[in-house]
Amino acid sequence: MSDQRSVDEKYMRRAIELAKRGEGWCHPNPMVGAVIVKDGRIIAEGWHAKYGEKHAERNAIAALKESAAGTTLYCTLEPCCHHGKQPPCTEAVIESGISRVVVGSRDPNPLVAGKGNQMLRDAGIEVTEDVLRDECDALNLVFFHYITTKMPYVVMKYAMTADGKIATVTGESKWISGENSRKKVHELRHACMGIMAGIGTVIADDPMLNCRIENGKNPVRIICDDSLRIPMDSQIVRSANDIDTIIVSGNRDYDKRKAEELEAAGCRVLIKPGENGKVDIKALMQDLGKDGIDSILVEGGGTLNYSILKSGCVNELKVYMAPKIFGGAAKSPVGGEGVEFPSDAWEFVIADIEQIDEDVCITYRRKRD
Amino acid sequence: MSDQRSVDEKYMRRAIELAKRGEGWCHPNPMVGAVIVKDGRIIAEGWHAKYGEKHAERNAIAALKESAAGTTLYCTLEPCCHHGKQPPCTEAVIESGISRVVVGSRDPNPLVAGKGNQMLRDAGIEVTEDVLRDECDALNLVFFHYITTKMPYVVMKYAMTADGKIATVTGESKWISGENSRKKVHELRHACMGIMAGIGTVIADDPMLNCRIENGKNPVRIICDDSLRIPMDSQIVRSANDIDTIIVSGNRDYDKRKAEELEAAGCRVLIKPGENGKVDIKALMQDLGKDGIDSILVEGGGTLNYSILKSGCVNELKVYMAPKIFGGAAKSPVGGEGVEFPSDAWEFVIADIEQIDEDVCITYRRKRD
Repeated sequence: MSDQRSVDEKYMRRAIELAKRGEGWCHPNPMVGAVIVKDGRIIAEGWHAKYGEKHAERNAIAALKESAAGTTLYCTLEPCCHHGKQPPCTEAVIESGISRVVVGSRDPNPLVAGKGNQMLRDAGIEVTEDVLRDECDALNLVFFHYITTKMPYVVMKYAMTADGKIATVTGESKWISGENSRKKVHELRHACMGIMAGIGTVIADDPMLNCRIENGKNPVRIICDDSLRIPMDSQIVRSANDIDTIIVSGNRDYDKRKAEELEAAGCRVLIKPGENGKVDIKALMQDLGKDGIDSILVEGGGTLNYSILKSGCVNELKVYMAPKIFGGAAKSPVGGEGVEFPSDAWEFVIADIEQIDEDVCITYRRKRD
Repeated sequence: MSDQRSVDEKYMRRAIELAKRGEGWCHPNPMVGAVIVKDGRIIAEGWHAKYGEKHAERNAIAALKESAAGTTLYCTLEPCCHHGKQPPCTEAVIESGISRVVVGSRDPNPLVAGKGNQMLRDAGIEVTEDVLRDECDALNLVFFHYITTKMPYVVMKYAMTADGKIATVTGESKWISGENSRKKVHELRHACMGIMAGIGTVIADDPMLNCRIENGKNPVRIICDDSLRIPMDSQIVRSANDIDTIIVSGNRDYDKRKAEELEAAGCRVLIKPGENGKVDIKALMQDLGKDGIDSILVEGGGTLNYSILKSGCVNELKVYMAPKIFGGAAKSPVGGEGVEFPSDAWEFVIADIEQIDEDVCITYRRKRD
């Protein structure tokens, strides 16, 4: 590896670190980090901290305390060249007088990819592309999926025993995974824009489905509840004025009075009729995508998990496996009708295997043909 | 680390390699490797190759082509000092004129541990203990368990989907795990002295339960079959003259005529009456231990797996998890009655996590209080 490449990677690594500070806050925008370097010194840093606010490059430029002439800007994502909530970053870079730009990820939209870099080159700036591209791409799996499909990136998560149970035969499930695994789930809730559960889980556990870590962000709660059975005194309904909450029914003949009560309590009620009075999951996901929800963590029981898999909307599967065995005809993480033949199974590929104390968390991504 | 220690570890590593050559063949003896070193050269090697034959130290000494004076013997296990099938190795070591002995594992029997080393010291030989002791101990988990408890070391193995299913809703199970995982199972069958399955599995799959790898050894097949339902034309009964086969019933009023037919076909029939006409697993394991069976691989379905867990006889759990989801109310790896509360679960600790293509194999050991 050339010396220049190794220097470029060093600063790009720092830009990646900065980008991660935006996790959970900049949806549905990408996480981006930027570093400005002059004569081997970092002279300014920036990241995209919050949706609607300045982009990483502009934040870095704003942090400059000396001239940008002769500097290199490291940016995890190709600078944008279009007007959105913010003016294009390419303009700011060109105006600043920066001499060289090093880019990690390309713009995920194939129709615009490379245009930002080209504009910089046209302005006489040297551009180096694809530095730590894989690492930079990994920051924004959600964004890349969302911006190209307009559908939320769906992460299905469950905790099960080593014999595949999510509760004992008597329905007890506190706790399956260990304390540190459960903390990780709150990090996931922070990182995802929405969280989805089924009415069965809500009635059984009366959960808050909020994010209980310091400086965490609560996801929008989405409850699939065909018969609008959610109790008005459930924790979710009682907190609906503070945390965005969507109750979804798939039943055309839904209880309009209950729907009004729920809306008066601060919930939003959505009707997405599918087969047999069940929520049309795909249509629901499309709607949530239109509403700007780029990512959803599914913490369902077996019935909801099956419906979502069947809809074809699952992008990632996170299985927390605890080092214990319950036995018995207890609840399994995926129920529904199931497939008839092994060849009909939903298939995944391993993205990561992590040991968390005595639990194992395996992250899978959907296998593409 | 001192230079001497690092040299000792180098030769002990070689002795460990040699010890592994006995895997599957020297039951219920331990796997042991030995290396004789003179002036920085290995001048002889040996291992315990087969039960009833010479021990590793004697094999190494027999391989000597020059005087043992001034040599060091590296031995993964403390040399034995008692008469068994073979005379004590300490005698041979002393007679040979070896000057120094380096030992990995101590004798697992606390009553004799250290006596072999002491005999060597009394004869004027320098003895260094505990070199790579953990690695040497890991060779002989089975032996250490068996020699101290007289019970077989029981490995429960199953392959399941990422949603904890061992078949689809229609009962199809070919295949769940990938080809290389299935090969690993044949290595386990080679390494274990016995293999146990339930009559449900035999009737559903008509398996051979043999070892299908080159130079592999077939384990003794043990079928739990309370009503002696095993078909006379099953692959197992038809091959019972070639491969040791034990059919076990827990029913006092077993079908004596069927038992005679099975014995005529080459099977051994054992009656181990427990509760409700079911096999008393613990008594069965004690009997198998008395018969010299030091290790059993359980490839059961949910019912047998539950009974064996309940008996308290499981030492190790090997879960192969495939990257696919079946869904539905399909068979789970552990059935039976199950526990009522999470705190009643059987608990394990992680011993190893291995990725095999897209499968994950997690090895657990029983958690001790």
